[in-house]
Amino acid sequence: MPESSQTIAETVSAVADGHLDSRQWVEHCLERVRNNEALGSWSFIDEARALARADQMDRIRKDGSALGSLHGCPIGVKDIIEVKAMPHGCGSPLMGQVSDQNAVLVDALEAAGAIILGKTETTEFAFLNPARTKNPHSQEYSPGGSSAGSAAAVASGDVPVAIGSQTNGSVIRPASYCGVYAMKPSAGIIPRIGVFEQSPTLDQMGLFATSLEDLALVTDALSIHDSRDPHSIAAPRPSCFQGACSEPPMDPNFAILTLPYSKLQSRACTEGFRELADTLEGQVEVLEAPPMFEELIRAQRIIHMTEAHHAFDRLGFVGSSDLSRILAKMLEEGKTFAQNEYEEALEIKASAGSFFQSFFEDFDAILSPSASGEAPLLSEGHTGNPIFCTVWTLAGLPTLNLPIMQGENGLPIGLQMVGRQRDDARLLRTARWFMTTLFDEGEA
Amino acid sequence: MPESSQTIAETVSAVADGHLDSRQWVEHCLERVRNNEALGSWSFIDEARALARADQMDRIRKDGSALGSLHGCPIGVKDIIEVKAMPHGCGSPLMGQVSDQNAVLVDALEAAGAIILGKTETTEFAFLNPARTKNPHSQEYSPGGSSAGSAAAVASGDVPVAIGSQTNGSVIRPASYCGVYAMKPSAGIIPRIGVFEQSPTLDQMGLFATSLEDLALVTDALSIHDSRDPHSIAAPRPSCFQGACSEPPMDPNFAILTLPYSKLQSRACTEGFRELADTLEGQVEVLEAPPMFEELIRAQRIIHMTEAHHAFDRLGFVGSSDLSRILAKMLEEGKTFAQNEYEEALEIKASAGSFFQSFFEDFDAILSPSASGEAPLLSEGHTGNPIFCTVWTLAGLPTLNLPIMQGENGLPIGLQMVGRQRDDARLLRTARWFMTTLFDEGEA
Repeated sequence: MPESSQTIAETVSAVADGHLDSRQWVEHCLERVRNNEALGSWSFIDEARALARADQMDRIRKDGSALGSLHGCPIGVKDIIEVKAMPHGCGSPLMGQVSDQNAVLVDALEAAGAIILGKTETTEFAFLNPARTKNPHSQEYSPGGSSAGSAAAVASGDVPVAIGSQTNGSVIRPASYCGVYAMKPSAGIIPRIGVFEQSPTLDQMGLFATSLEDLALVTDALSIHDSRDPHSIAAPRPSCFQGACSEPPMDPNFAILTLPYSKLQSRACTEGFRELADTLEGQVEVLEAPPMFEELIRAQRIIHMTEAHHAFDRLGFVGSSDLSRILAKMLEEGKTFAQNEYEEALEIKASAGSFFQSFFEDFDAILSPSASGEAPLLSEGHTGNPIFCTVWTLAGLPTLNLPIMQGENGLPIGLQMVGRQRDDARLLRTARWFMTTLFDEGEA
Repeated sequence: MPESSQTIAETVSAVADGHLDSRQWVEHCLERVRNNEALGSWSFIDEARALARADQMDRIRKDGSALGSLHGCPIGVKDIIEVKAMPHGCGSPLMGQVSDQNAVLVDALEAAGAIILGKTETTEFAFLNPARTKNPHSQEYSPGGSSAGSAAAVASGDVPVAIGSQTNGSVIRPASYCGVYAMKPSAGIIPRIGVFEQSPTLDQMGLFATSLEDLALVTDALSIHDSRDPHSIAAPRPSCFQGACSEPPMDPNFAILTLPYSKLQSRACTEGFRELADTLEGQVEVLEAPPMFEELIRAQRIIHMTEAHHAFDRLGFVGSSDLSRILAKMLEEGKTFAQNEYEEALEIKASAGSFFQSFFEDFDAILSPSASGEAPLLSEGHTGNPIFCTVWTLAGLPTLNLPIMQGENGLPIGLQMVGRQRDDARLLRTARWFMTTLFDEGEA
C-alpha cells in the first residue's frame, strides 16, 4: 500500500522497482472509494476495467517494457470529460450516453500509464446547481463546485489525483473548501477536445492532488497540443515538474491586491491575509486592484452567459424542463447581450491579458483568497461564490490553491497563488519556496 | 549557422543559449532548399510561415518562456501528412486541396518547438509510381520510395530531419539509397490521424535524420497516444533518446537471417554481410529464416492490396483515369481476395507477432539488408524493391537504417537493424553500440 505521505512520483517509482503492484494500488483506492461512498464523490466506477488495466501495467513492468510517469497511478476524471465505454453524465438527466471515445487528456493519461477508476461527480453541466457530493471534512458542508467530486475524492484519499475543469472558479474554490492542493494551468496548456463545452473562451482544465509536486507531474503528462482546440498553444510547454522541484534564483516577490469584492471575505480569511502580509514583510506589496477589475467581472459574465447560451442552443437544450431553474435563468440571461456587448467584453478580456503580462514583470505571483472563506452549509443550497477566481480565469493565468488556512468552523480555507500566463513552472517554483520557507513543507 | 556535424539536440541547445537564432537556422535551411531545387525533394514550401514561426520561437526564448526539445528546428513532412494551410498533395492530381487541420504528429512537432518548412515529395499516394525526386548522391538514380522527398531532403542537408511513412518499405529503402539514418518505430508509437490511409493494418510512420540520436529525439516528440487511431498504444512509450544515449549492460547478440529472397541481393550487399558476420564473430548467429517467411510476404500482399482497394473505393478513386497504371492494377488486385483469404492473412500476421516476441528473447537485434543493393537508375522507372522490409513492417517491429556500406557504383547501401516490438529504446541502444564499436562513430 502506498504511504499517504508519498508523492505520486515516489509511489510510481515503487511500482517501477516492483515493491508495489499497480493492482495493489488500485485495489487500495477502490476500497477507499467503497468506504467513502457516503460522500458521493463518484458518478461512475468501473472496478473490472481498472483492475484489468492495473494488471496490464504490471505485466508491462515485468516484461521490461517502457514505464510512464504515472505508471499504475489510479485517477478520477470529472464527469464532463469523455472516457470511452463510460457514461458521460455531466450531472444532468439530459446526458448519460456511453462515450465511444476518449477526451484527448484521457489518452494522454493512459499513455503515461495512469488508470482511470471512473468519473467524479459534477454540478449540473459544471454550472452552479449542486452535485450530491458532501464535504469530506464535515458532511453537512458543501464541497464547492463545479468539480465537487474530484475535490472530495482527493480530499478523502480515494485517489491521489483527479481532473476537474474551471470556467470561473470550479477548481480552486472546491479545492479551498476541501483542503487539497489544486492547479488550473494557463489557458491552452491542456487540450479540451472531448470535454463538455460551456464557454470556449473561458473553459480551462485543472486538477487536484495532495502536493505541488503531484500537480506538476500530472500537468506535464496532460500538457499536449491539439490544434482542434482553438486555445491550444502551438509552442513548447513549461516543464512543471522541474519547476515544482527547483529553488528560485532569489527570494520571490509577491503582490496582494485589495479587491473590489474583498468585503465578501470572512473574518478568518481577512486575518489570515493580514498575518501573511506581516510574515512576508519586505517581499510583498499590498496594492489596490485597478478599477478595471469591476469591468472584468462584468465582461466575464457577458462572455460566459452568451457562450453558454450558444452551446446549449446548439445541443437543443435551451428551454428543456430537465434543466435546473438556476441554469435555465443563466441561459436566458445569455440571450440578452447584444453582439457588440459581447465583442466589447472580449476586448476587455484581451486588455486584461496585456495588463497582467506587464504586471508580472515586477512580481512572481499574486496572493489572493481562493474563496470568500469556509465552505457553505449544504442546506444553503449553493456551492459558494466563485468571484475570487473570476479575474484570473478570465485572463487565463495559472493559479494554485494552497491549503494552508482554517476558518471559524475548523474547515479549510485555501490561499490562491496566481502566476504569469504560460509561466506555470515559475508559479510552481514560487509556491514551493513559499511552502518550504513559511510552512516547512519539505515535500510540498 | 549550425555545424553539419552537430546533432539537433546540440543545435537546439545553441538556440536555447542564444548562440544561434532559430531564424538563422531556418534561413540557412531555406537557402539549401533553394540551392537543391533540382533534386525535387519538396512539393510545397512556405517560407513566410516558416520565418514567422522562427521569429515566434526566438521571441519565446528571449521572453524566458518554456523551450521545446526541437525548439526552432526546421523539419519537412511527407506530402501525405496534413499540415494546416498547406496543400495536401499525396503525389496525385486527385488531391491538392488545402488542409484545414494538422495531422496529430504535426501538432506534436509544433508543441516541441519545431518549424515545418513544407511538404516533401511522395510517390503517388505513397505507392510505387515514382516521385519527381532525384537521388542526391547521383542525379541519374532514384531516391527510392515512397518517402522520396524526405530521404533526399535530409541527404542533401536541406533539413536535419524529415517525416515519412512506411506501409511496406517506404522509409528504410529510400534511406538506404540516399545514405541517411532512418527509423520506423514500432507500430502504434506515432499516431496516424491526419495521414493519408493506404492500409490501416500496415501503415506506420517513420523518419530520416543524420544520426541515431536525432532519430530518437524526434521519435520521442512524436510518441503520443491518440485513441482515434486503432493501433495507437494506450500505454507508456519507450524513451528513445535515453536509449540512443546509453551503453548496453553487456555486448549485444545479433541474428542474421538467410532470407528466402536473399538471391535478390547485389554482390556488394552480400559481401558486406559476410564481412559483418566475421567482424561480429561470437556475437552473431546466422540462421535460416523459418519457412513462414514466404507465407508472410504473401499475407502482407493480401492485406495491403485488400485494404488499399477499400480505402480508395471509399474515396471514389477506384477506376479514376488520374491513377497511374501500376496503382490501378494494384487496386484491381485488391478486389480479387476473398474475405476468408484476408482474414487468414491477418491471422498469419498475428502469428508472426508471437514468433518475433519469443525470437527476441535470444537476440537484441536482427541484421538485414535495407534493400537489395544500390538505388536503381531513374530510367528504370521504378523505386526499387521493398521486399527486404516487408516482414518487419508486417510484424510492426521497430527498424533502423544505418548508412554504412557502399555499392559497386559508389552509392550508399544501408544495413537494417530490427528490434523487438515496443522495445525501440533497446534497438537504439544496440545500434549505438554497433556504430561506436565497429565504426568509431562517437556521435552516432
